[in-house]
Amino acid sequence: MKNKIHFVVIRLLMIALMMRISFAQAQILPKPNAQQLAWQKAELGVLFHYDLHVFDPSKYAQSANRITPVADYNIFNPGSLDVEQWVRSAKDAGAKFAIITATHETGFALFQSNVNPYSLKALKWKDGKADIVKDFVEACRKYGLKPGIYLGIRWNSFLGVHDFIVDGTGEMQKKRQQYYNAMVEGMVKEICTNYGDLFEIWFDGGASGPEKGAPDVLPIVKKYQPNCLFYHNDQLAEARWGGSESGKVSYPCWSTFTYPSTGSGESTYKGISANNFELLKHGDVNGKYWMPAMADAPLRGYNGRHEWFWEPNDEQHIFPLDDLLDIYYKSVGRNSTLILGLTPDNRGLLPEADVKRLKEFGAEIKSRFENPIAVTSGSKKVLQLNLSKATTIKQFVIQEEIADGQRIRSFSIEYFSNGKWEKAFNGFSVGNKFIHLLEKPITATKVRLVINVAVGAFQITEFGIY
Amino acid sequence: MKNKIHFVVIRLLMIALMMRISFAQAQILPKPNAQQLAWQKAELGVLFHYDLHVFDPSKYAQSANRITPVADYNIFNPGSLDVEQWVRSAKDAGAKFAIITATHETGFALFQSNVNPYSLKALKWKDGKADIVKDFVEACRKYGLKPGIYLGIRWNSFLGVHDFIVDGTGEMQKKRQQYYNAMVEGMVKEICTNYGDLFEIWFDGGASGPEKGAPDVLPIVKKYQPNCLFYHNDQLAEARWGGSESGKVSYPCWSTFTYPSTGSGESTYKGISANNFELLKHGDVNGKYWMPAMADAPLRGYNGRHEWFWEPNDEQHIFPLDDLLDIYYKSVGRNSTLILGLTPDNRGLLPEADVKRLKEFGAEIKSRFENPIAVTSGSKKVLQLNLSKATTIKQFVIQEEIADGQRIRSFSIEYFSNGKWEKAFNGFSVGNKFIHLLEKPITATKVRLVINVAVGAFQITEFGIY
Repeated sequence: MKNKIHFVVIRLLMIALMMRISFAQAQILPKPNAQQLAWQKAELGVLFHYDLHVFDPSKYAQSANRITPVADYNIFNPGSLDVEQWVRSAKDAGAKFAIITATHETGFALFQSNVNPYSLKALKWKDGKADIVKDFVEACRKYGLKPGIYLGIRWNSFLGVHDFIVDGTGEMQKKRQQYYNAMVEGMVKEICTNYGDLFEIWFDGGASGPEKGAPDVLPIVKKYQPNCLFYHNDQLAEARWGGSESGKVSYPCWSTFTYPSTGSGESTYKGISANNFELLKHGDVNGKYWMPAMADAPLRGYNGRHEWFWEPNDEQHIFPLDDLLDIYYKSVGRNSTLILGLTPDNRGLLPEADVKRLKEFGAEIKSRFENPIAVTSGSKKVLQLNLSKATTIKQFVIQEEIADGQRIRSFSIEYFSNGKWEKAFNGFSVGNKFIHLLEKPITATKVRLVINVAVGAFQITEFGIY
Repeated sequence: MKNKIHFVVIRLLMIALMMRISFAQAQILPKPNAQQLAWQKAELGVLFHYDLHVFDPSKYAQSANRITPVADYNIFNPGSLDVEQWVRSAKDAGAKFAIITATHETGFALFQSNVNPYSLKALKWKDGKADIVKDFVEACRKYGLKPGIYLGIRWNSFLGVHDFIVDGTGEMQKKRQQYYNAMVEGMVKEICTNYGDLFEIWFDGGASGPEKGAPDVLPIVKKYQPNCLFYHNDQLAEARWGGSESGKVSYPCWSTFTYPSTGSGESTYKGISANNFELLKHGDVNGKYWMPAMADAPLRGYNGRHEWFWEPNDEQHIFPLDDLLDIYYKSVGRNSTLILGLTPDNRGLLPEADVKRLKEFGAEIKSRFENPIAVTSGSKKVLQLNLSKATTIKQFVIQEEIADGQRIRSFSIEYFSNGKWEKAFNGFSVGNKFIHLLEKPITATKVRLVINVAVGAFQITEFGIY
C-alpha cells in the first residue's frame, strides 16, 4: 500500500512536471494570426492566371515570355469575358477563396491603375474602361468566396525588370529602379485600397525587399490590409510555398518553419532549396515561425504539361479526377492549403472541360466527406468511436485546433476488428486537417485515435470516419 | 572690224561655252523636292514643347530628365488647355506652320496611342480620352497653319532608352529593343495615318536607323506621308539643323549639303561637328544634296536661360523684341527656316507674356515688310530700281527661285547717291530669301542688284527695298 501510494505520488509528480514542461513549451509555440487561421481553414482556393499571352498564337514558355514583351497588347480582347463564370466554377470545385493575377510577368495590369500605364486602360477593348480585378472581387463576394490578388513584380518584360532589378547600367538604371519600386508600391496601395478586404495578397517569387533595392511592399499591405494573408517577401511569409508545383506536400507537413520568411534564395535563408525544397515540403516541427504550407498546381498539369496559362488544345492535360483527388489527399489531407491554378481562355471564359472537371472534383469531395459514419472530438489522449455494428470504413479525418499552435506530434489510428485492435495508421502531424485514405477499406466495430506525443494541451476538433 | 568681229565671235563662243557649262552644272544642281520647297517658303514655324515635366515642381534639366522617369504621370492635368490659343499665338507671330512634341524624352505620348501605353490614355485627366495631337492639328488647320509633329524616340526615360538603345544586357535587352523599335515604328505609323497630311515630321537628334539596331522610321514616313518633310535620320535629312539653337545661321548659308543626312554623330558623316558645327551653319555650296537649314531657338532663350520647357517665373527670359528681330534677320534673312520654340504652361495655355511678345514680333515683321518702297524681279544680271525721288532705304530683300536649285553664288547691292554708285552689300548666297538690314539707312535715287556669279540661269523673284 505504501509502495502503491509512493508510486502514485511519484507518478502524479511526474505528470505535473510533464504538464509544466508541456505548458511551458506550449507557451512558446508559434501560433497562427487571424488571417493564417482563416487561410488554413479555407483549405482550398484557386488562382486564376490571366495575362496578355493568353491571346497570342504561340505557346507560353515562361523563361522566354518573362523577358519578351508581348508584341501587341491589343490582342487582349476577351469577347465573352464572364468573371462570374470563373468564380462559379471555383465554387463548384469547393474553393473558399479565389485569387487573380492582377499582374504577372508581362507587367500588364488587369485593373485601372493610375501608376502603371501598361494596364487595361491602354486597350481598345472596352474602350480602356475594364477593371477585371474589380469585376473579380465583386464576383467572389457575390458567390461567397474570399477574393485575393496576385501581383507579379519580380519580372516585367515591358519595363525590363529581371528578378526585381531593372535591367541596365549607370544612372538611368538607378533612376528607373527608383521609379519601378515606387510604381510597384503604388500598385500595391491601389490593390490594397480600391477593392475592399482581401483574403490573400500573393507576391510571386517573394517580393524581395528594399534592403536588396527592390520595392518595399510589406508595410503597405500591413497598413491597408492588416487582416490579409501576406505571401510573401524576404522579411515575412505568412504562408509558404509547399516546395513543388505538384499540388502536394510531403508528410508530415508542419505549419511551422525555421525562418520568418522563405526568402528569395539561398542567400537569405539557408537550406531552403536543399534536397529539392525538402524543408518547404515538410516544414520544421521545431520552427519558431507559423507558416503553413501552400500546395499549388495548375489544373492543366497532367501528362507532360504544366500549364498556368491557357493554350488551345490543352484539354487533354487537365488532371483526371483521380489525380485531382490524389492531390487533394496529399495537400488538404496533409495540413496544407491547396490552390489550384485555373486559366480562362481567350474568350474570357473558363473552358467547358475545366469547368466540368472542377464540378466533378467538388462533387466527389463533397460526396466523400459530407456524411461521416461517426465523428467525435475532445482533448483526451484517446478518442474512441464505438459503432453500433461492424462498419466498413474508407477514410479517417483528424483535425486539431490550431489557433494556439500545432501541438500533436505523434498519433495512431486503431480499429477493433476480429476481436483485437489493429493499427490503421501511425502519424505525426495533424494540424488543420489530416486525412487518411485507406488503401483498402476495413471493417470495424470500434476505432480510436491515440495521441502519443503532444506539446501542451491539444484539442481534437474532429476525429471522424468516412 | 575684223578684230571686232573676231572678238564678238570669240565672246559669243565663250558665252555659249559658259552657258553650256552653266547649263550642265545647272542640270546636276541639287533641287528641293516639293516638301522642301514648301518648308523653305514657309520661312517661319513654331515648335510647341509639352511633356510631363511641365507639371512637376523642379526645374527641367535635360541631362537628368531624360534618364529619370517622372514620378507621377498624373501630374499632367492642364485644367485650361486651349490648343487653339497656342496656334493663334503662333499665327500672330507670322508662323506658317506649327509642330508639336507628340513625344519628347520622357516617352509620354500626347495622343491616343494603341502601341504606347505611356500616353494620354493612362491619365485621369479627361478620363484618358484626350488627344492633344488631334486637337493641335485641327487647330492648325482651322487657323491656316500647316501642322507638323515631333517625335522624340532617342531617349525614353520610362522604358529606359538611351540614345536609341534600350538599356540592359543579354537576351532581355535584345527582346526589349525589338519591342521598342516596333513600338516606335507603330507610333510613327499612327502619327502618319491618323492626323491627315503633315507638313514636317521631326525626329529629334536624328532617328538613327535599323543598321544601328534602332527603329526604321523612314520607310513608314515615305509610305504614308510622301509629301511631308522628313527631319531626319541617318539615311536622310530633308532639312538640316542649322548648327546651333541660337535661332541663327551663319552667312552665307547654302541650302545644299555634303551628305544625304547629317547623321547622328561623327561616326556617320565626317566633319559635321567640327568647329562648333560650322558645316551645318553654312552648308556646302558644292554639296550634292538639297538640305536647307533650320534655325531653331526657344522663345525663352534670353539672359542666361535656354528653355524649351515651361517653368514658372521664366518670363524675364523671353527674348526681347530686338533680339527676336535679330534672330529673324539672321535666319529667315539668311535663307534658313526659323523655328521658334514655344512652351505652354501647366494651365495648358501659352503664357500671356509669350503671347504678347509673339504678337509684337509678328506685327513688327509685318510692318517692316508689308509695304516695299519698290520691288522688281527678273533674270537679268543687273536688276535696277529707279526711284522717282531720293528715298530713304532701310533694308533690301532678295529672293531667287529655288525650285531648280540655288544658283546665285555672288552678288552686290548698289545704290546711286550723290551722283555715283555705292556698294551697299557684297553677298554670296541668296536662296529663298536674303535680307540686308542696313546699319544706317541710306538715301538713294536708284538701286541695283548685280549678280556676279551664278550657276546656270537664275530667276530673281524679288529684289525689293524697304
